[in-house]
Amino acid sequence: MLLQFLDYIGVAVFALTGAIVASRKGLDGLAFLFFATMTGIGGGTLRDLLLGVPVFWTLDDGYLMVCAGMSALMWFAGPLVERLGKPLRWADAIGMAAYCVMGAAKAFAVTQSAMVAILMGTMTATFGGVLRDIVAGEKNSFLKPEIYVSAALAGSALYVGLRMAEMDSWVAAGLAASFALILRGGAIVADWSLPGYKSTVDK
Amino acid sequence: MLLQFLDYIGVAVFALTGAIVASRKGLDGLAFLFFATMTGIGGGTLRDLLLGVPVFWTLDDGYLMVCAGMSALMWFAGPLVERLGKPLRWADAIGMAAYCVMGAAKAFAVTQSAMVAILMGTMTATFGGVLRDIVAGEKNSFLKPEIYVSAALAGSALYVGLRMAEMDSWVAAGLAASFALILRGGAIVADWSLPGYKSTVDK
Amino acid sequence: MLLQFLDYIGVAVFALTGAIVASRKGLDGLAFLFFATMTGIGGGTLRDLLLGVPVFWTLDDGYLMVCAGMSALMWFAGPLVERLGKPLRWADAIGMAAYCVMGAAKAFAVTQSAMVAILMGTMTATFGGVLRDIVAGEKNSFLKPEIYVSAALAGSALYVGLRMAEMDSWVAAGLAASFALILRGGAIVADWSLPGYKSTVDK
Repeated sequence: MLLQFLDYIGVAVFALTGAIVASRKGLDGLAFLFFATMTGIGGGTLRDLLLGVPVFWTLDDGYLMVCAGMSALMWFAGPLVERLGKPLRWADAIGMAAYCVMGAAKAFAVTQSAMVAILMGTMTATFGGVLRDIVAGEKNSFLKPEIYVSAALAGSALYVGLRMAEMDSWVAAGLAASFALILRGGAIVADWSLPGYKSTVDK
Repeated sequence: MLLQFLDYIGVAVFALTGAIVASRKGLDGLAFLFFATMTGIGGGTLRDLLLGVPVFWTLDDGYLMVCAGMSALMWFAGPLVERLGKPLRWADAIGMAAYCVMGAAKAFAVTQSAMVAILMGTMTATFGGVLRDIVAGEKNSFLKPEIYVSAALAGSALYVGLRMAEMDSWVAAGLAASFALILRGGAIVADWSLPGYKSTVDK
Repeated sequence: MLLQFLDYIGVAVFALTGAIVASRKGLDGLAFLFFATMTGIGGGTLRDLLLGVPVFWTLDDGYLMVCAGMSALMWFAGPLVERLGKPLRWADAIGMAAYCVMGAAKAFAVTQSAMVAILMGTMTATFGGVLRDIVAGEKNSFLKPEIYVSAALAGSALYVGLRMAEMDSWVAAGLAASFALILRGGAIVADWSLPGYKSTVDK
């Protein structure tokens, strides 16, 4: 139930970020729809393909409707959304937090491997956004020093660790998603970042 | 039968567009082969992966031969092809029209969901070309205002609607592909486009 | 056994190339980890998805550990690795040689189609690197005239040909991987390249 809810939240806010990018580029209504859908379901689609389970949105039309709803919201009420502050970065952060837990939980249930679950949580939390940025021709999260991928990794790892310690899945999911969100929030508010590699050789 | 034929047509003309891009970039013969193959089979591959059915070209060597044939055609008779006018845009349009019907038909048969079938038709009709453009470092269709993705969506939706109204699959496929082609053709000939989003906030 | 070994080698050296790219871009430790992992397992993941078999690294944690080890190596001993000469290009060459044989072998065993096996060997030997270059925003191998994709194709084709001639799989794998490596090595040392297409029409 909580996981189902996190899943919808993750899809919805990622879809919103896709629609925001489409709006900032001045694209047409269909591009809104496709940027929203691609960003919303991208990560979970990759997760399901890699796990060899049926792709989640082919079984439940609700996910596609959520994506369509988010692009409509942005198309008709874009200025309202933009007035919220840094809506793109915050929606992205919430989506990442929800998705890393979902990805790790599903992968852990299927493979029972902690390592695979952590990687899958991280990949699927970041893949939708990276796909959005590549198709939009923008710089993607892997190339920026700010904490983003690391927050997804930390959230996935915490979830898997808590589950291995037999903690209840609701509590574990809540704690892990909050942890990922706090780390990412710190990066947005206070510019937290990881140190970059300083090469000592000429290239 | 008609669907089988549309499938080969879609693969062939998309493969041709891949080879045209390779030729315009002055790439070598193998790059012709791979741009042709990637563009030709990209959309259908994504469709089959998402539907969880065997990838079509792993079952029938004919598709890969068609892609190889198209790169050879372009390599040896490129100037002839280029003299046809706007071969890249028209081949792309025909491929898109054929592919959106095929994608929607296969997805509708497998999932019975109209929404999934429409998305799948649209995605798989546009994915090969987007992949081609990303690998080639060109601006992709999602970022251009002209009617392209919307034509694929309209074709997919018409096919699914006609099939739900119990129309014969041949007639439905023919009508839907023609509709998509006319919409896209209008964009090529008369610059039809969808209105872009006009933001009222500063970024 | 030999194939298993080639598989680890391919993953390891591709992972190293991912980490080298991360280091040259001055990215953080996690970006090292993800560039290494994405490049290391990318090709094989695509191969397994297309063949409809379980994705290899979901069954054996060793592959992910190898990727983690390679990013650690580069993070802590990067200058040492860089002092080896052209480590990026050579590691990439070895990975390509090992991966094209692995990809062709697995695809041939599953589909029994020589054509599919050759394409799969070539695609999976080049996909990890292309993915790395697209995410890093660099020019990818398909767009460069030097021999790279063609070496992977030659290696895959030789392996399949030798196997069809009933040659022992170890010998065939060794010969094919060496052949691919020699072709690519020639491109690195002596700038071997394929002739590009010379268009005779204005664009």
